[in-house]
Amino acid sequence: MSPRKSVAETAATRDRIITSALALATTEGLEGLTIGRLAVDLGMSKAGVIGHFGNKEALQLAVLASAVDRFRLRVPARAVGAAPGTQRLARAFDEWIDYMAEGEGHGGCFLTSVATEFDGRPGPVRDAVLEALASWSTYVKDELRAAVESGQLPKDTDVDQVIFELDGVILAANQSIQFHRDPRAPARARRAIARLLAA
Amino acid sequence: MSPRKSVAETAATRDRIITSALALATTEGLEGLTIGRLAVDLGMSKAGVIGHFGNKEALQLAVLASAVDRFRLRVPARAVGAAPGTQRLARAFDEWIDYMAEGEGHGGCFLTSVATEFDGRPGPVRDAVLEALASWSTYVKDELRAAVESGQLPKDTDVDQVIFELDGVILAANQSIQFHRDPRAPARARRAIARLLAA
Repeated sequence: MSPRKSVAETAATRDRIITSALALATTEGLEGLTIGRLAVDLGMSKAGVIGHFGNKEALQLAVLASAVDRFRLRVPARAVGAAPGTQRLARAFDEWIDYMAEGEGHGGCFLTSVATEFDGRPGPVRDAVLEALASWSTYVKDELRAAVESGQLPKDTDVDQVIFELDGVILAANQSIQFHRDPRAPARARRAIARLLAA
Repeated sequence: MSPRKSVAETAATRDRIITSALALATTEGLEGLTIGRLAVDLGMSKAGVIGHFGNKEALQLAVLASAVDRFRLRVPARAVGAAPGTQRLARAFDEWIDYMAEGEGHGGCFLTSVATEFDGRPGPVRDAVLEALASWSTYVKDELRAAVESGQLPKDTDVDQVIFELDGVILAANQSIQFHRDPRAPARARRAIARLLAA
């Protein structure tokens, strides 16, 4: 980074690197991100790429943070207008399923894939993924509790069991979209979720 | 491989390499398998390791085939004695959940993790994973059909929907065991499966 570059230019380059890294990590995994490949994709030097972050792990964490931001804006933020409880959850899961099937229709959910990639690799990236998953679970738990309190779901609902099964539906949708490229996956996921939220 | 070695010795060494590679791939992923690391673990030369397979991809395929064999012996083979239909499926899923929670209790399912690892990497490994998943789906579908025909499940059961949701439960159990190390995961998975097979 030349000291002559403005703060805005530096931030724009950083964003461009993160966008490119996120696209690369979507197919290659976050561990498969290589500075060399990224430098080629961006027409930059390796030092130019890494200079914005310091090291590969810091780049991985920046990519993850960006993916979490995108998810928040794309999924829970669009469900804010729905009534608390099952309606808001149904909307959020609907948005998530749409999000997974977007683009070429087989991108799936980046965060879901990264969770599997890092399940056996302790360290800051795994911790950041765990934090993102915990934040989502808290969101779902709060809405499920609101649903129980308002009588939308039975009083004896095992909220943690419903969260476990909702997670499973998302994982199945992700696998079905990414791996099997099954065009019926979104409809199957919606049906499973509707049943869980009507229980 | 020295030409003086017997066929049995060669096969034993090959098995030893595969066992070690499977253990390494369980934490590092199948793509994270490196011949160098494996050679160190086994006290062999890199050439000695790779000589048994030809290249890394052939080693990956051998590891995968070994994991599929272990799965078959551990899961469907133990359900053979159960009555066809929902009882056999319940037994098979029960064995699978036990299998996932074995060892240190957070190994999860190797094949499930590899499926996610290779969903975006076309090639022979991905094809082999797809074949293994398809073979499992066929097994489940046959038993679900037997269940419908014998009246254990309603005539209008959407068999593909049940398969999708059963897959989701296994994926959720795998994530919950491997990533969250949640000791309640096996019980949650069994409860979800019992509900799907009683529908």
